[in-house]
Amino acid sequence: MFKVVEWKKNTCVMIDQRLLPTKEVYNTYKDYKGVAKAIKDMVVRGAPAIGVAAAMGCAIGALDIKAKDFDEFSKKFAKVCDHLAGTRPTAVNLFWAIERMKGVAEANKGLTIAKLKQRLVKEAKDIHDDDIEINKKMGRNGAKLLKKDWTILTHCNAGALATAGYGTALGVIRAASEAGKNVKVFADETRPFLQGARLTAWELKEDNIPVTLITDNMAAHMMQKGMIDAVVVGTDRMASNGDVANKIGTYGVAILARYHKIPFYVAGPTSTIDMDMKDGSGIPIEERKTREVTHIGGKRMAPEGIDVLNPAFDVTPAKLVNAIITEKGVVTAPYKAGFKKLFAKK
Amino acid sequence: MFKVVEWKKNTCVMIDQRLLPTKEVYNTYKDYKGVAKAIKDMVVRGAPAIGVAAAMGCAIGALDIKAKDFDEFSKKFAKVCDHLAGTRPTAVNLFWAIERMKGVAEANKGLTIAKLKQRLVKEAKDIHDDDIEINKKMGRNGAKLLKKDWTILTHCNAGALATAGYGTALGVIRAASEAGKNVKVFADETRPFLQGARLTAWELKEDNIPVTLITDNMAAHMMQKGMIDAVVVGTDRMASNGDVANKIGTYGVAILARYHKIPFYVAGPTSTIDMDMKDGSGIPIEERKTREVTHIGGKRMAPEGIDVLNPAFDVTPAKLVNAIITEKGVVTAPYKAGFKKLFAKK
Repeated sequence: MFKVVEWKKNTCVMIDQRLLPTKEVYNTYKDYKGVAKAIKDMVVRGAPAIGVAAAMGCAIGALDIKAKDFDEFSKKFAKVCDHLAGTRPTAVNLFWAIERMKGVAEANKGLTIAKLKQRLVKEAKDIHDDDIEINKKMGRNGAKLLKKDWTILTHCNAGALATAGYGTALGVIRAASEAGKNVKVFADETRPFLQGARLTAWELKEDNIPVTLITDNMAAHMMQKGMIDAVVVGTDRMASNGDVANKIGTYGVAILARYHKIPFYVAGPTSTIDMDMKDGSGIPIEERKTREVTHIGGKRMAPEGIDVLNPAFDVTPAKLVNAIITEKGVVTAPYKAGFKKLFAKK
Repeated sequence: MFKVVEWKKNTCVMIDQRLLPTKEVYNTYKDYKGVAKAIKDMVVRGAPAIGVAAAMGCAIGALDIKAKDFDEFSKKFAKVCDHLAGTRPTAVNLFWAIERMKGVAEANKGLTIAKLKQRLVKEAKDIHDDDIEINKKMGRNGAKLLKKDWTILTHCNAGALATAGYGTALGVIRAASEAGKNVKVFADETRPFLQGARLTAWELKEDNIPVTLITDNMAAHMMQKGMIDAVVVGTDRMASNGDVANKIGTYGVAILARYHKIPFYVAGPTSTIDMDMKDGSGIPIEERKTREVTHIGGKRMAPEGIDVLNPAFDVTPAKLVNAIITEKGVVTAPYKAGFKKLFAKK
């Protein structure tokens, strides 16, 4: 099984997701700026995986700090954290992981600098290992929603490649598959970055889960033909009212699902829930370079001299979401109350 | 101005739409089998343009027939027509144009074979010229539906490149623009063949109509943000009840438009209306090669060994269509009665 992001001898090793599925290349990052660039350039992507990579970036940055005392360390570590936080604006796990690392530094200020550094390395590894554990729990919770022989539509890649391993939306599908439910998957190719065609199709095939690739604009037709039983997607950030930010196109799929009376499920760890965000209107939507739209595989497809937009995410209102699947349980509307109950759980 | 399909010294000259927008290449077809292959391979595409090309294919085929009398000519001509009719199943204009050519042959059976051939050449040229005239009338009829400063979303290319010239959906936009309405266009890129990115963006830019390119899955987000005032698309075939077959993805856009209370208009010549078709369920949907989905610009994007679907069209039910724009007038529901009134007009 491939490794998405791994701590190895004080470096961070990541599979270069831009080259999949035709090439399986692992890059080694030895300084935090390299990790930040890898996040920005989408060597690694997917909200939980970004969180893990950022935590490892913090740890690598911490190892390189020269400081006499905690105050000096803390100032330098804040710079490392700020740099990593400036990479991508939408996924809340990035900020969540960085805040967790900062909190651990603060909580262990009594340690020697050398021991503090080791404590931060341990925390980054824990974030990695926790993520896999969380995904497996989420998978088991979500699998109960899927019936035998169902065909599930998914958008983008919320799979092992979007996390430390196992996946969120694809984790639910994996768990259903492991439970003998014989589920099949339709994967939207997910323009412009083609995470569905390149990543979801690849990792499901590796796992022998039947997958059919379609272009994004075919989903409605497949639903009309009765070929889709449910939609399961991941999320980069959920507002406290249950509004869901996820890969561009998710909102459209949610509308199509509702029109065809197909359940629309969102799978995300509780670290993706942003209780400080009242609703989805406040979630920043990253606008990426237009070249991702005008060029494919390095080749120009569109004429020069036209306008192009490239928002990387959209927001699906809570009212279109049938249930939100987390590692602590499945929540249905009203989501704010449901989230509060989750966080009250140990 | 580029020519889409043109009769030139007993040959058919077509711009190779597969190479746009990076290359502007004109191919010359000297026999009907070449024309048929060009239709099948999408050198020419768009329902009305396919009709014109097929008519010219019939004329070229007719010129090459060696026959002593009309009976012999008629049998050989039927073979030419059948071959051309076997190219693409969805667009009804293909069959409409071929039937018109057959009808003219039958109606002129009294002529010498040489004169009959010239009569068929004239008919093919008339179909070409009529198409432009029809598009301009349709444009004027449809432009009345669009308000000043509106931004129009369109899907695929129902433009000059889809017709003999001027366009159906883009004809409506051109007419609104010519009437000083200051309209802007959002173009869905339209996977897998990228007619929006390659063709619509190109021809609107050539005409100085402001165009913004988006991927198909961004349309819902743009509607949510209030950036789209109306949708105008073309059609390959309309059933008598107003169900509309058009490029894959159109049905999804119609659902999104209805969800956001945005009017969804369809522009098509009356030759696109198939009164023999009770509803859209009977319209054959062409399934094209999966390579169009798995490869872009000759480069493999998806892994090998997965399932892929590639339906080229979908059917939008009449209830999602706010109005159908034809050269004989604008029709609203109930469409069957409206179509009958259109056909009663001279």
